[in-house]
Amino acid sequence: MKIVIAPDSFKGSLSAVEAARAMEKGIKKAFTQAETVLVPVADGGEGTLESLVAATKGEIVEVTVKGPLLQPVKAAYGVLGDGETCVVEMASASGLVLVATEERDPMLTTTYGTGELIKAALEQGYRKFILAIGGSATNDGGAGMLQALGMRLFDKEGKLIGYGGAELGRVAKIDDREFDHRIKESEFLIASDVQNPLIGINGASFVFGPQKGATSKMVEQLDGYLTRWADLIEEKQGIRLHDKPGAGAAGGIGGAFQAFFPSTTRRGIDIVIEYTELEKKLCGADFVLTGEGQIDSQTASGKTPMGVAEAAQQQGIPVFVITGSIGAGIEELYQYGITSIFSLVNAPMTLEEAMEGCDQFLEMTTEQIARTFFASYGNK
Amino acid sequence: MKIVIAPDSFKGSLSAVEAARAMEKGIKKAFTQAETVLVPVADGGEGTLESLVAATKGEIVEVTVKGPLLQPVKAAYGVLGDGETCVVEMASASGLVLVATEERDPMLTTTYGTGELIKAALEQGYRKFILAIGGSATNDGGAGMLQALGMRLFDKEGKLIGYGGAELGRVAKIDDREFDHRIKESEFLIASDVQNPLIGINGASFVFGPQKGATSKMVEQLDGYLTRWADLIEEKQGIRLHDKPGAGAAGGIGGAFQAFFPSTTRRGIDIVIEYTELEKKLCGADFVLTGEGQIDSQTASGKTPMGVAEAAQQQGIPVFVITGSIGAGIEELYQYGITSIFSLVNAPMTLEEAMEGCDQFLEMTTEQIARTFFASYGNK
Repeated sequence: MKIVIAPDSFKGSLSAVEAARAMEKGIKKAFTQAETVLVPVADGGEGTLESLVAATKGEIVEVTVKGPLLQPVKAAYGVLGDGETCVVEMASASGLVLVATEERDPMLTTTYGTGELIKAALEQGYRKFILAIGGSATNDGGAGMLQALGMRLFDKEGKLIGYGGAELGRVAKIDDREFDHRIKESEFLIASDVQNPLIGINGASFVFGPQKGATSKMVEQLDGYLTRWADLIEEKQGIRLHDKPGAGAAGGIGGAFQAFFPSTTRRGIDIVIEYTELEKKLCGADFVLTGEGQIDSQTASGKTPMGVAEAAQQQGIPVFVITGSIGAGIEELYQYGITSIFSLVNAPMTLEEAMEGCDQFLEMTTEQIARTFFASYGNK
Repeated sequence: MKIVIAPDSFKGSLSAVEAARAMEKGIKKAFTQAETVLVPVADGGEGTLESLVAATKGEIVEVTVKGPLLQPVKAAYGVLGDGETCVVEMASASGLVLVATEERDPMLTTTYGTGELIKAALEQGYRKFILAIGGSATNDGGAGMLQALGMRLFDKEGKLIGYGGAELGRVAKIDDREFDHRIKESEFLIASDVQNPLIGINGASFVFGPQKGATSKMVEQLDGYLTRWADLIEEKQGIRLHDKPGAGAAGGIGGAFQAFFPSTTRRGIDIVIEYTELEKKLCGADFVLTGEGQIDSQTASGKTPMGVAEAAQQQGIPVFVITGSIGAGIEELYQYGITSIFSLVNAPMTLEEAMEGCDQFLEMTTEQIARTFFASYGNK
């Protein structure tokens, strides 16, 4: 009896590691002798670093950097168990969670801290990077990150511009002579599901600006600034980010990687599955348990339970999902390998109550699922 | 693949028949070819009549009788498929649901209508009765039922007393000369889980009076009236109801059956299991699905899921329970044959929302359970 436990975090309640532990308790209650393999996962958003470090028995290195509003923040990069791959979670340096709701303003927020994190890892000799770019507070086209790494951006009068989305309205020249030379000796694997281009109504500003605090007027301004930025990059690098898929990820930092970094992009969950060696760990499992805070038909597009299910489906392993809230259209998920979906909510209650009791509910629901599965184990 | 579906009602949302149909839909979604056997059940309370009539393909006979406050109500008795057994559900004639909350007053409420239902069935020639006595609004010691069947109750001045719990304060003589002679030619099977005696702090008035609208002062008065009634019965019949287990059921109607009817008492769920032939229907089932509105450690004492589980456990059949609300202590239920317990609530929501969407949630949860069970079907 082997069970793989591979949940994402339950946002606001439990990290993926905590969720996995609660699920493990439930399994052990149902079947004391079960072998459990914990593989907390993430889809490239928050928790990716923790998941990869935990799975590979790596370590976390704290670095104080400039936050989205240039305030000092304690961020971190992870070094995987292989001792050579660094994981940088953009959200830890330039994330929306670092800015109070009333201060969210993509005119001002910068990706500078993300650049500092990369630089700190380069200083330590690392040349292999995984960048998880979900959850950013920024719309600066990755300019801040480049600035932190030595790229000099000038206005038309030859003065260095400042930081934040609005400053791109003034940029006239990109000077890469002092850009960190170790970048081109490195590999960058970008974890991102976003296919949006940099510019236009499907671009970074229009699609993601509002959730970062942009008003509709700002959105148009920011789109104009990014256009100027993209024009300059095209001129300099010969790469046209305006309509390039993925360039609009994380306020345009996706484009900066495409233009200036030796980089490839993959779906976050696929990277996590590879680096956690989930497929290998699945071998011989009787079932897999996964989950996250909410499940609906959107889950089909690259969210954690879907990635776990696809991996398990190849090996014919049933996948049980536990979630806080089951939305519409879950039937669509069966085809991707999800066997069944349960809510951890065990009675009418408020969201707050569900979040408060999340670990206990998760444990109990897991126990019930395991008992149900084992009931037919060995039949027919 | 055979699945037996044996839920109780989900009070306020679905009858047992409706719940069984919703569950069947879920099963069919998970496994189109599954053979489903629907056995809506009840524990002797409301829904017992419907359950037994449905299971035996019997019929329902409507009779207008006097309600708890003597108002006309449309009540019914059921004739089982055997054509000879009648089911009388006390709640349909003398039930709490027939009295608005502000009018609940066990000083006034009477079991007269229950007697009328029995009389109507006697007139049709029936002599075999199952009495489901849950949910009564009364505390009249069954006096009203006896009055409807010809028993004459006099005060000390030789005048007939009226109806309701308070009238027992005046009763001085029981005259059974006109008591329906067909009663003694009949058999009465009383479905009741209540072991309380008629009198005292564990008696009908103290334990059940308050939920029927009695104030604490009334409770003492009612207990006094029932004492007078029990004294008279002891004098007349030589049966001492004061401390007799079960005499306090349903406001003392339990005692009236014990003293004046050829009757036996059994746990409601056991009677339902026997008459629905649940055990026979369980043969060869892969699992049983049961459920009711709420499950907690109390469920161990004679509630529907427990009875179903006990029957299934004898045949080694897994029992899955779906409920609206999972309370504390459910682990205790495993020993009685319950395999696992799930809530139909699929996200944080209010009780009203859960009740409103009950049939859809029930269907969806059933589908998930079936998919989980089938996932291991045939393994190892």
